[in-house]
Amino acid sequence: MITSTSNDAIKRLVRLRDRRTRDDQGTFLIEGFRELSRAVEAGVVIEALYVCPELFLGSNEPALIQRCIEAGARIVEVAEAPFRKASYRDRPEGLLAVARQFGNRVEDIDLSGEPLVLVVEGIEKPGNLGTMLRTADAAGCRCVIVCDPTTDPFNPNVVRASLGTLFTVPLAVTTTARALDVLAAAGVSTVATTPDEDATIYDVELSGAVAVVVGSEQYGLTSTWIEGATVRARIPMAGEADSLNAAMAAGITLFEAVRRRRSPTT
Amino acid sequence: MITSTSNDAIKRLVRLRDRRTRDDQGTFLIEGFRELSRAVEAGVVIEALYVCPELFLGSNEPALIQRCIEAGARIVEVAEAPFRKASYRDRPEGLLAVARQFGNRVEDIDLSGEPLVLVVEGIEKPGNLGTMLRTADAAGCRCVIVCDPTTDPFNPNVVRASLGTLFTVPLAVTTTARALDVLAAAGVSTVATTPDEDATIYDVELSGAVAVVVGSEQYGLTSTWIEGATVRARIPMAGEADSLNAAMAAGITLFEAVRRRRSPTT
Repeated sequence: MITSTSNDAIKRLVRLRDRRTRDDQGTFLIEGFRELSRAVEAGVVIEALYVCPELFLGSNEPALIQRCIEAGARIVEVAEAPFRKASYRDRPEGLLAVARQFGNRVEDIDLSGEPLVLVVEGIEKPGNLGTMLRTADAAGCRCVIVCDPTTDPFNPNVVRASLGTLFTVPLAVTTTARALDVLAAAGVSTVATTPDEDATIYDVELSGAVAVVVGSEQYGLTSTWIEGATVRARIPMAGEADSLNAAMAAGITLFEAVRRRRSPTT
Repeated sequence: MITSTSNDAIKRLVRLRDRRTRDDQGTFLIEGFRELSRAVEAGVVIEALYVCPELFLGSNEPALIQRCIEAGARIVEVAEAPFRKASYRDRPEGLLAVARQFGNRVEDIDLSGEPLVLVVEGIEKPGNLGTMLRTADAAGCRCVIVCDPTTDPFNPNVVRASLGTLFTVPLAVTTTARALDVLAAAGVSTVATTPDEDATIYDVELSGAVAVVVGSEQYGLTSTWIEGATVRARIPMAGEADSLNAAMAAGITLFEAVRRRRSPTT
């Protein structure tokens, strides 16, 4: 049992907040009951699970810990003070895992049939990427393709903001050029959302195999995406603000596609 | 010119991050070029404007400062170190104003005609409220009615996440009971979004004078709203996550109303 805040294992957990450490080790952090449950369910490899029973919120933690043990995880008990130091949350739930990073090659994504896909380009904020994953999950997206990101999908704030949907929605990280190629080869039409367009998302085709493409909040989509997409469309906006935030634009457009899929005649 | 980080005025600016100080003084903070521009445009009373020219991002700041002077604001120049201490941002833009709080009585809101209204209940996170204001602005909402909030609309993070739309979208803060009365009296139908419902937002009436009602992320809407609303509807969801976040649910439902308003036949 770890009782000291200066324990080496606690320091290693804190260092995993840095991308370089994560990339060097090929691991990342998963914190929280819901997030860890979804990771285990999805078959993510848990190398070690740090637990602090004083901080458990409910009574389901032992069963989840048991599943991690059966899947080969090493369990380490931690006293409250060092656990709070290792945690990146304000209200830790007593569960912090070191998991193995998993592949996210665009070539491994199944694009057969009539998938709804979310493509995001140049996203900087981990919280935005997490919210987009959560929204893509709710919209029933087949996958999320992240082009030229400046954020790491294994950032702890992606795990957190996604509520663990990082583990349930297939995710690919690639370049814009490669994403365009792969989607075209699979016969998936692409809808680039951009404010500088006459057609709105309510005017363009969104049925069949379709990818909604959303750029960064600050810069929007690159010309590569705007010119390379099958169609371009804007979200009609009233008001004073410069734009909806990128995750909101993604959600509004994805759910317009959801609406068309449920009742193709309206 | 303020050069010391221990200057009393800097301490007072920092204290305005606390709700009690804001409520005692009837003032609040506005930081950033875009936010301040929108406030001035909307006629918000700026009592004092603290400026740090070294931190200006562009060349439009002097014109905005001039407008503040003409509107009666006191201008105080601040050196970079004390300005950074007073700022609540990671990347301060050299503009931090103390503004007078403005009225937000539901009785003062114009609900005539066929307004689209956003009603939110029990919102805890300032960032969520700010995102909702920004989204309501983009959707062309007549106003946002905030019921039983645990967050203060004059919290600096509301100003920030709203990108200043706190000043462009009329806002009322009231109780759920009062909001129900006022909307009913004005003939505005209410659509309560809740997951426990057969009808979806695509099935229910959203035309005419209508208010979209969204609850807190953690608890959803209270039974008072669910039972008191004209209709109830859910957003159809696939996937594993428990729900969309509250701001996303608001945006998706508001833009479904926007879509119906633009082409009532589909």
